[in-house]
Amino acid sequence: MKILHIDSSITGGDSVSRTLTAAVVERLLALSPDADITYRDLAAQPLPQASAPLLAVAAGADVPAQDSALQADVSVVGRVLEEVLAADVIVIGAPMYNFSVPSQLKAWLDAIAVPGRTFRYDAQGVHGLLGEKRVIIASARGNVYAAGSPVAGYEHQESYLRSFLDFLGVTRIEVVRAEGVRLGPEHAQAAMAGALAQAGQLEAA
Amino acid sequence: MKILHIDSSITGGDSVSRTLTAAVVERLLALSPDADITYRDLAAQPLPQASAPLLAVAAGADVPAQDSALQADVSVVGRVLEEVLAADVIVIGAPMYNFSVPSQLKAWLDAIAVPGRTFRYDAQGVHGLLGEKRVIIASARGNVYAAGSPVAGYEHQESYLRSFLDFLGVTRIEVVRAEGVRLGPEHAQAAMAGALAQAGQLEAA
Repeated sequence: MKILHIDSSITGGDSVSRTLTAAVVERLLALSPDADITYRDLAAQPLPQASAPLLAVAAGADVPAQDSALQADVSVVGRVLEEVLAADVIVIGAPMYNFSVPSQLKAWLDAIAVPGRTFRYDAQGVHGLLGEKRVIIASARGNVYAAGSPVAGYEHQESYLRSFLDFLGVTRIEVVRAEGVRLGPEHAQAAMAGALAQAGQLEAA
Repeated sequence: MKILHIDSSITGGDSVSRTLTAAVVERLLALSPDADITYRDLAAQPLPQASAPLLAVAAGADVPAQDSALQADVSVVGRVLEEVLAADVIVIGAPMYNFSVPSQLKAWLDAIAVPGRTFRYDAQGVHGLLGEKRVIIASARGNVYAAGSPVAGYEHQESYLRSFLDFLGVTRIEVVRAEGVRLGPEHAQAAMAGALAQAGQLEAA
């Protein structure tokens, strides 16, 4: 089994989402000790963001031999796609920043939305190609955005990831969530304990 | 009157959203010929994304004198905030990329969400501080995401911007929209004509 472990929080060791992705991966390894892990830290090494030159290359343009910066960008974006295609399980650390995902995580999503590789169009419409993947989202939120909360309508983090993953055909999406982590130490502690318990109950692939 | 004109599309001259922001600004200038324009192209000159060092500086840390890269990042992020605070009208070019906004536009939103400047907390809760601004979103979408569309639930672009702007206290939000621009040339042409007509009907500030 191949696990792809993605972190995107910029808050380093204190990060709630990083603590959760680590717990999720630890749980998966306990269930499948021979799993391979690929790790990518989108905050430590931000991906190139979508750009006109990358678009052109994706559409078939050659990379000028002397443009080593573009060559490097094309190479890393290609590697990111291969990591996703190779994975059986993808663990995504996704903190909410200003009601959505970090820009670094958005750049990763843009990198893996590739026609013919992760989705395709035909006369019947669009077809996601990642139907065999399991995705586990490690979600961290400062406030509480559950249905019924006065700020529920502001939530464009998990709901956005679900839309995007649904587009790519992913049907098995699990969420390990710590929310309200900025509502005081007691709330934060309870939220973290609950999320870690969720991680500890994840099933084998 | 001060107009802040923001573009974020990576598709250059062909960009629908750039065509629309230009039309919006032209209309505003026709109504207020003495307006000042500040222009920022987030694709040509991407902002620094949120990061641990920028967070630390925002929380009061000093910038090491020898860290000129961080000094430059702090400086541009500060300038972006001042541009927003100074503006009466903000025109935001916002194409939909993979159901949300470009990562470059997200980085701009992250840069302007500054406690004490664009919002503040007190015992009563959160208060947006941009209530006097008028915001005009120039929205471009490949597909049709209107309510009732089968893909309406995937829409995290305008709805996300509205959430974020609402948080900052903006109440006057107008949208000039061309959608379905990838559904064939006829649809694209009609969508663009409709959006340009919307731009031409914008009222004076």
